[in-house]
Amino acid sequence: MTLTGHSLIAGQAVAGEGKTAFGFNPASNEQLEPAYTLLTEEQLKAATAAAAEAYASFSTLDPDTHAAFLDAIADNIEAIGDELIIRAGQETGLPAARLQGERARTTGQLRLFASVVRQGDFRGVRIDPALPERTPLPRTDIRQRQIPLGPVAVFGASNFPLAFSTAGGDTASALAAGCPVVFKAHNAHPGTGELVGQAIVKAVRDSGLHPGVFSLIYGPGASIGQALVADPAIKAVGFTGSQAAGIALMRTAAARPEPIPVYAEMSSLNPVFVFPGALNGSAEQIDALAQQYVTAVTGSSGQLCTSPGLLFAPAGEAGDKLAAAVGRAVSACAGQTMLTEGIAGSWNTGAAALGSATGVDVVGRGTEGATKNAPAPTIFGTQVRDFVSNHVLHAEIFGAASLVIRYSNAGELVEAINRLEGQLTASLQLTEADYPTAAQLIPALEQKVGRIIVNGWPTGVEVGHAMVHGGPFPATSDTKTTSVGTLAINRFLRPVAYQNLPQELLPAPLQDANPWRLNRRIDGTVEAAADAKDEVNA
Amino acid sequence: MTLTGHSLIAGQAVAGEGKTAFGFNPASNEQLEPAYTLLTEEQLKAATAAAAEAYASFSTLDPDTHAAFLDAIADNIEAIGDELIIRAGQETGLPAARLQGERARTTGQLRLFASVVRQGDFRGVRIDPALPERTPLPRTDIRQRQIPLGPVAVFGASNFPLAFSTAGGDTASALAAGCPVVFKAHNAHPGTGELVGQAIVKAVRDSGLHPGVFSLIYGPGASIGQALVADPAIKAVGFTGSQAAGIALMRTAAARPEPIPVYAEMSSLNPVFVFPGALNGSAEQIDALAQQYVTAVTGSSGQLCTSPGLLFAPAGEAGDKLAAAVGRAVSACAGQTMLTEGIAGSWNTGAAALGSATGVDVVGRGTEGATKNAPAPTIFGTQVRDFVSNHVLHAEIFGAASLVIRYSNAGELVEAINRLEGQLTASLQLTEADYPTAAQLIPALEQKVGRIIVNGWPTGVEVGHAMVHGGPFPATSDTKTTSVGTLAINRFLRPVAYQNLPQELLPAPLQDANPWRLNRRIDGTVEAAADAKDEVNA
Repeated sequence: MTLTGHSLIAGQAVAGEGKTAFGFNPASNEQLEPAYTLLTEEQLKAATAAAAEAYASFSTLDPDTHAAFLDAIADNIEAIGDELIIRAGQETGLPAARLQGERARTTGQLRLFASVVRQGDFRGVRIDPALPERTPLPRTDIRQRQIPLGPVAVFGASNFPLAFSTAGGDTASALAAGCPVVFKAHNAHPGTGELVGQAIVKAVRDSGLHPGVFSLIYGPGASIGQALVADPAIKAVGFTGSQAAGIALMRTAAARPEPIPVYAEMSSLNPVFVFPGALNGSAEQIDALAQQYVTAVTGSSGQLCTSPGLLFAPAGEAGDKLAAAVGRAVSACAGQTMLTEGIAGSWNTGAAALGSATGVDVVGRGTEGATKNAPAPTIFGTQVRDFVSNHVLHAEIFGAASLVIRYSNAGELVEAINRLEGQLTASLQLTEADYPTAAQLIPALEQKVGRIIVNGWPTGVEVGHAMVHGGPFPATSDTKTTSVGTLAINRFLRPVAYQNLPQELLPAPLQDANPWRLNRRIDGTVEAAADAKDEVNA
Repeated sequence: MTLTGHSLIAGQAVAGEGKTAFGFNPASNEQLEPAYTLLTEEQLKAATAAAAEAYASFSTLDPDTHAAFLDAIADNIEAIGDELIIRAGQETGLPAARLQGERARTTGQLRLFASVVRQGDFRGVRIDPALPERTPLPRTDIRQRQIPLGPVAVFGASNFPLAFSTAGGDTASALAAGCPVVFKAHNAHPGTGELVGQAIVKAVRDSGLHPGVFSLIYGPGASIGQALVADPAIKAVGFTGSQAAGIALMRTAAARPEPIPVYAEMSSLNPVFVFPGALNGSAEQIDALAQQYVTAVTGSSGQLCTSPGLLFAPAGEAGDKLAAAVGRAVSACAGQTMLTEGIAGSWNTGAAALGSATGVDVVGRGTEGATKNAPAPTIFGTQVRDFVSNHVLHAEIFGAASLVIRYSNAGELVEAINRLEGQLTASLQLTEADYPTAAQLIPALEQKVGRIIVNGWPTGVEVGHAMVHGGPFPATSDTKTTSVGTLAINRFLRPVAYQNLPQELLPAPLQDANPWRLNRRIDGTVEAAADAKDEVNA
């Protein structure tokens, strides 16, 4: 595929009238062709206006065409082939196997949302039939459905050039909801963004949709992003990135004449709690646990929202063995190229600050990688008293660093949990003997995280119906939502009620004939489209 | 029941250490006993701390006890008897019949939420079972449920001393979700608030719940409200009132170290669109339509969130007849006592401003009521051109005033709709001949309102499963929600996922044994608790 170096606005390559920017290979710090032309704020309006125009037809699209469109995006991404993996590898330093896995996750996610569109429960159909004989007042027929919010602005993440970017979870769930998307490409992987953007544009065209359903824009990071969120045509925002950037977008959205929701997934320490029972096994089992932890910390150079940044380990001999095993395991690790020179620089600053904090020592340190921007993975250590009293130890270090915290009893863990800010996940390593302690901690953890994991690691977020990739602020901007999994579609919907409308004026999902074969909540009870009684009689 | 004149904090009457305030009878402007002592901000913390403490047990309450608690509140409110209607009438000037209806709505709403608690779908159980054989990676068991957000601050409305106040929709839905409530009483009806508050406190005690589940506080309006919303123990806010107050609470909530959602229902013009077909009948039919409109405008002295503030009527002879009939109908109306002297004053100011705007005349005016604070209901008239070009004509006048707007064609209506801010409702008066025009308008209306009504009036909001009492900003602060109907419970819930937890550590709603008999979404498909297959086999 030829990279144009331009934004894709409503199906057209549009040269930006601002400056230009290049992708960079972080393994070599070399510039990648082509130059990307950056849009001005004035040019941006063509994208948002097209999205607003596309809303009327896209928001009312029949489920079959709608689902096939999402499937077509997945097909088109696969059709790009190795070119996508190669370009993404050049722009991010991520290994091919990881990118292939991420591509599979991206296409799988699109197809999952296609199935959600076909199934239709997200339309939230509720019907309270008329009760003309009710006293003292009759009830008129009232019907409710969820409608798409409107055009959505999506911001790509640096660390997932595919699964949280152009056709990632935010885009997939917004498109599934029936919202046109204006996607702001991450300037760290512009070529990857364009390849995927062209795949979406082709799907829009081949599906016969209004071209404004999708636009991909390049622009100067912060300023064009703020202009996009401030644009009156935009009705919601999906974002994955830093806390500072996420909070800036929240402020802009709240200050609009019409405030809009911002779904920002921002930061997380993902604490892991190792209970005594988990260390009661053999030395090999302790080594295995340590190795799993170090793998979770160092995988993708630690640049995952769900990398464990904290490991609570018991005081005493067993905990000492675990810490020693962690030290050995990380010592054997070489640094991997980080996403950008800036991110590697921030990692160095953060690791230096943590390492020089009172009461913090080094449990183990790996070696620098052979490429540029590949710092040595490092695991620090401290005591729970220091962690509780020093907020510096709560700072997220994005990359391959983590902190082992030694504790003496469950009370200290509860205190530490209560001091934590909101997180995406918490993980518990335990055996049956630890259940009473775990049962004591879980209610406190529920107040702090979106997902609780037992005997597993937080990395490798499953895309399914039950997943929550969310959590209390500042892990996300809206604890009531998830950015991964099918529940994510709810972020882009709002309810509308229709009272006493004749069949001719009701939207298809609410008509008596139920042409879209939807499950419907009738007077509070869900009735399946393929009603069980009919099946029994058949 | 003896009125103590004090706040009810976690079951105890607590004398406020601030100033005192009295209820006022707006029909006579006379002070009502007893004096109400106002809390200081420092005293407020006892209520929020108790609510935080109550969360652990209340949020995990078994459905039977939980539902019985809501039913008990309803029973206790009914047991107050006439005393409640009398006191509410004294404090608000509202007639007894209206207050009796409002009481029935309040108790019906509590019992509806009790049924929601028993039924349990709001717990949002999703289970994605483990797939140990899946390639390339196995899937672990992941389960999701919705948990209560935490303590909720609720602000009572001036215009519904029962249904949107102490035990009103916000309180009922928050308690149903499992959230403790700190209720800020409206200073315009403190005695009504205390009577209902005592009914709730009794239900808390009789149900054996933690007393922090409910507190009723009196305080200096704006400042104690801001302190309540800023309190770190509070996790969400329900509010019904003015745009200025609602937006002030939104700002405070957004500026907290941990921002929280504010569900504010603020203002609405509730436009009514009369189509030509609706005026094709007899003079009597036109008179009846005019009378219904005037009744909707003047009922409860127009002090309803859903009073129609705009009536779009066609130009030409039929529209002239309608306007004349409206003028006759309103001329026959006497003013009714408004809720407070301040509200009556605001009505006078607003009506004077509208009446003196360019292009606005008077269609008809009633007479002043015999009591104080009972201004003459007034219906103004203008042309759609003036409405579109002059934002002054879009100001809500809370009370018995409305504006008839004459239009020539559907294009003008679309333009007027596009100029509207967000509203709670839009109503269409039409016959079959008008369907094509209505079909053209409905997509535009969906973008502006939460409920569309055909051949009915927006007043008389049904409390059911399909109702939406919400809409785009500034009608509400969060267009994704409703403050009336069972969907309102979702405002106070957030999802949490549990990955690979042993049965012993899973919360009851997620256990395999399904002890709470919940419907569950298994791998994306809802399975009924009473599974149809079992019934067939039985």
